[in-house]
Amino acid sequence: MAYIERINSPYDLKKIDKKELETLAKEIREFIIDSVSKTGGHLASSLGVVEATIALHYVFDFKKDRIVWDVGHQAYVHKILTGRKDRFHTLRKFNGLSGFPKITESEYDHFNTGHSSTSISAALGMAIARDLNNEDYQVIAFIGDGSLTAGLAFEGMNQAGHLKKKMMVILNDNDMSIAPNVGALNGYLNQILSGQFYKRMRDRIEHILKSMGTIGTPMIKMAKGMEETIKRLFVPGMLFEELGFKYVGPVDGHDIEKLIEVFEKYKDYDDPVLIHIKTKKGKGYKFSEKMPEKWHGISPFDRETGEVYKSSKGTPSYTSVFGKTIIELAEKNPDIVAITAAMPSGTGLTEFAKKFPERFFDVGIAEQHAVTMAGGLAIKGKKPFVAIYSTFLQRAYDQVIHDVCLMNLPVVFCMDRGGVVGADGETHHGLYDIAYLRPLPNIVMMAPADENELRHMLYTASKLSFPCSIRYPRGSAEGVNLDKELKEIKIGKSRVLKDGDDAVIFAIGSMVWKAKRVADKLEQDGIFVKVVDARFIKPLDESEILKSAEECGVVVTAEEGILNGGFGSAVLELLQDNNILVPALRLGIPDRIVHQGSPEELLDELKLTETHLYYRIKDFVKQYRYAKKKNRGEIE
Amino acid sequence: MAYIERINSPYDLKKIDKKELETLAKEIREFIIDSVSKTGGHLASSLGVVEATIALHYVFDFKKDRIVWDVGHQAYVHKILTGRKDRFHTLRKFNGLSGFPKITESEYDHFNTGHSSTSISAALGMAIARDLNNEDYQVIAFIGDGSLTAGLAFEGMNQAGHLKKKMMVILNDNDMSIAPNVGALNGYLNQILSGQFYKRMRDRIEHILKSMGTIGTPMIKMAKGMEETIKRLFVPGMLFEELGFKYVGPVDGHDIEKLIEVFEKYKDYDDPVLIHIKTKKGKGYKFSEKMPEKWHGISPFDRETGEVYKSSKGTPSYTSVFGKTIIELAEKNPDIVAITAAMPSGTGLTEFAKKFPERFFDVGIAEQHAVTMAGGLAIKGKKPFVAIYSTFLQRAYDQVIHDVCLMNLPVVFCMDRGGVVGADGETHHGLYDIAYLRPLPNIVMMAPADENELRHMLYTASKLSFPCSIRYPRGSAEGVNLDKELKEIKIGKSRVLKDGDDAVIFAIGSMVWKAKRVADKLEQDGIFVKVVDARFIKPLDESEILKSAEECGVVVTAEEGILNGGFGSAVLELLQDNNILVPALRLGIPDRIVHQGSPEELLDELKLTETHLYYRIKDFVKQYRYAKKKNRGEIE
Repeated sequence: MAYIERINSPYDLKKIDKKELETLAKEIREFIIDSVSKTGGHLASSLGVVEATIALHYVFDFKKDRIVWDVGHQAYVHKILTGRKDRFHTLRKFNGLSGFPKITESEYDHFNTGHSSTSISAALGMAIARDLNNEDYQVIAFIGDGSLTAGLAFEGMNQAGHLKKKMMVILNDNDMSIAPNVGALNGYLNQILSGQFYKRMRDRIEHILKSMGTIGTPMIKMAKGMEETIKRLFVPGMLFEELGFKYVGPVDGHDIEKLIEVFEKYKDYDDPVLIHIKTKKGKGYKFSEKMPEKWHGISPFDRETGEVYKSSKGTPSYTSVFGKTIIELAEKNPDIVAITAAMPSGTGLTEFAKKFPERFFDVGIAEQHAVTMAGGLAIKGKKPFVAIYSTFLQRAYDQVIHDVCLMNLPVVFCMDRGGVVGADGETHHGLYDIAYLRPLPNIVMMAPADENELRHMLYTASKLSFPCSIRYPRGSAEGVNLDKELKEIKIGKSRVLKDGDDAVIFAIGSMVWKAKRVADKLEQDGIFVKVVDARFIKPLDESEILKSAEECGVVVTAEEGILNGGFGSAVLELLQDNNILVPALRLGIPDRIVHQGSPEELLDELKLTETHLYYRIKDFVKQYRYAKKKNRGEIE
Repeated sequence: MAYIERINSPYDLKKIDKKELETLAKEIREFIIDSVSKTGGHLASSLGVVEATIALHYVFDFKKDRIVWDVGHQAYVHKILTGRKDRFHTLRKFNGLSGFPKITESEYDHFNTGHSSTSISAALGMAIARDLNNEDYQVIAFIGDGSLTAGLAFEGMNQAGHLKKKMMVILNDNDMSIAPNVGALNGYLNQILSGQFYKRMRDRIEHILKSMGTIGTPMIKMAKGMEETIKRLFVPGMLFEELGFKYVGPVDGHDIEKLIEVFEKYKDYDDPVLIHIKTKKGKGYKFSEKMPEKWHGISPFDRETGEVYKSSKGTPSYTSVFGKTIIELAEKNPDIVAITAAMPSGTGLTEFAKKFPERFFDVGIAEQHAVTMAGGLAIKGKKPFVAIYSTFLQRAYDQVIHDVCLMNLPVVFCMDRGGVVGADGETHHGLYDIAYLRPLPNIVMMAPADENELRHMLYTASKLSFPCSIRYPRGSAEGVNLDKELKEIKIGKSRVLKDGDDAVIFAIGSMVWKAKRVADKLEQDGIFVKVVDARFIKPLDESEILKSAEECGVVVTAEEGILNGGFGSAVLELLQDNNILVPALRLGIPDRIVHQGSPEELLDELKLTETHLYYRIKDFVKQYRYAKKKNRGEIE
């Protein structure tokens, strides 16, 4: 009987002989590869931590001890070991297992994660609570070297090292975030791993001793024979030691027995300890070992050939249209620079990076820095395009306000993944951006109805002398034809897609063409609905909205964003401020958590599919049409 | 003629003999103390950097070279040296000089600041732009050791050290943020300054050599006589060197000639260099030297006695009522813990910290960490009160969403300085919080009408099992009597302060009693306006609002927050969703930048004083009352 079959809880794991754990690791790896090949998911990260996760569960008792998985997409092994193997085929599916740790899913999940670099702070909070409660257990933050580049992780380290609470940080060093890592810290870690750190220190000593002349010479000779001593003189993780952590490592993160030994040794250590383990992202599957960035998050694939199954819709994604268009723009405008926070591929900047390496900046997982640096670039005449997911721009909110909008600097926020994103679920949907950007001064907010409009908006943005945002959804675009020539769109100008006088739909972004198709269908029912592609969330096309609302007498707004304070609210504000009192139906995301599933499933649940829109709008319009006609004297 | 008189631009400074600069420093110090004693302002920070600022302007040419003053409240000397001496008496006043660098104020101000830790990122952006433009100048980030604790600064360092751009970071180490610094980094800097770093290293060497036995013994002897060598072996700023910066220092930050020498030496240095200067916050004025925290930001004072003039209103501040109430609550509830991000005094937690040192956490300037750590504390049964200014909670927006609201954890955000804050101006007003929190799931949002209600809300918050925010304004509270017994307020329940049927005002927070007084006055005009203290922004008291709106037929909302997506919008959404179509006037902050001035001046400019409210509401109600009465058949 295979080992994996025997494990229904971590207690079963502890019964297995240490020597057999490697076999278990192999089985788990096979299980994950097999399962993820069907569901899709974050493959490479979890494959990299199979041994480490087994060792952790072997040494610790996570009914008592706490662990925070930073980002959390590496927690598949943890899920499999904690009684969720049988549901693993539902991973990331509607009503299925989450792709991230979820406190509502298992008593073994101790803190929800999804966004990077929260683990040290959360673990420190738990450690403080433990001590206040006079309890005794270990608290572990399991964090990748990529996540360590975010300031939040540094803030957590800085305080943890100061408070000297008992806690363990496991630094999972695979030299990658999603993309290869950047930054000085990464260079430092690489020096530790490669032995360069010692070499540099040795050279420094030699240099100083030489400069001492006759006094130094005998010491140089001695030093030469003392490689080991020098190594011990300079703790490799000196940077972490300076921040108050005991540094242990580097440890081979695929050597289970070694890991168990180290974890045992520091299990009850009373001060903050950082254990530096070296792992290979994508370990154990030839394709993901070779291209861990591609295999970071992957769609279902053929496990034999490594071929990723194509999604049915053949239209290009918004991301790729963005990626191509910004290259076109940059070819003509030398001031354009592009910035990503560790997502060159996800945001569509891979080609740009190749073509304009001097004008491309991957800042690592450091969204705050990305935005403030964009402010610095803009004030010296550059035109920065910050390509970022809607959900991650939340991480730089103050910088958007303080370092861009208040100074009215021409930074362009290209917000990908606006709206529901699907399988990543609640932590990753881009639902709040419309509401959180709309209060800010100076910013112009756009959202294209399709990829052709996206291109014109990007062009328009490149011409602006003030901040703007462009929001577009995840995945396939509409499949419309692309104009060759890029045109500037007048700021705050909407476009009418269809005329009608029973009601008017003001739609934005992904809802525009849906609204148009719904209106076409309603026309067959004898209901004539005007459709306006708002294009701008801010400033609104005031004259068009006021005119249409007055003429049609019934208003519908449609957006793929949260309704509280969103686009529909902006329309209400405008109407009310102009005392146009007409019935209005706001369609968008209600005030609740949206979980995971395919975008179609989620939009269905949220009653935002085309079919739902059809019935919801029809009901609403019919309800008021009678009264309206009567008012107009068209019926008695 | 005094030196200060001769200086109308930095060019005049360069004409002064180096030896005389110390005299100039003295004069500037006197000028600042004298001027700030009348205007109030950030005294201690600017007094600490007089010599450094003079030296910078002596060496660099800031028509060409760039400098970003982190936070910016230390830039008074810079302002005085760059032609703004004659306007210095208008500091922080309505239409006067800003207390922070402002690009619109002088060509010598290169980037607006106000919030901490942006300088390195902004400077790096400028350095990149410089190189792309093939220009040649130095870019300087001038940052305090307090600001260095924020993750954003680390993110900037991490990339700057990696990109190896020519730039200079001047680390102004005064061992303070506003309050004394915390965190491991601070301990590290102190070790450098005190020589402890060397001592520790020496001990380590000795220990290792000893452990080597006979081989080591002769080396120990040699090492003992080699204090200097060891010092050179270990660069004191090794941590910065590991991050890719050349480290220089520590340098006495009050020795102008030494500073000039160092700046000259590294003026054209091609790589990132960090110059560590040691200064004394509040230097040169006995009162501020002794209590730099108190004298960080100060009201007008008597410069001879150091006595701070009392503002006329004798009522306690919201901050102090919060500070007292949380102690009362904590005495009864051992799970309550309090967290501040470097603002123990500003947020009113000084007494709490003394009384419950184990339950008080000053995390340094690290708002993100503060919130995520609160999440960790909450999930292990603690009840964290995060005391923070509205404007600074912007810095932890993603953490509020991701680490608190999505997990529905019972963290209480006590948001001080909600609304206009006065002299600090645009970077510090708390205008956006209502709009940016309202879209978030699970959160309950309260705002008290007065200090008595604040107390009940704090008590209510302490009982909740989900996230909540309480927002209150800067400065004096209403001066109402305080109930001895604390009462739980039913979630989402408003209270009616006055009846009326011509219109209803739904007011929140600081606008409630104003609205009440306005309604009293309108009553004398024969206009009867109902006044509702909404108490909750989320959830709204739906039944009261719907009922009142229907009965009164005219709605007014009042809030001291931005109108886009704010409280008034929430009311509009509710009315519209229930198809109650009535005229509504939303009173609040319009979509523009609000500059500096006294709160009274600003509210006057924004038409939100009681007098303005009176006329605005009167006009609005009268406009609709006739139509309403006619509808009702009360007139023909």
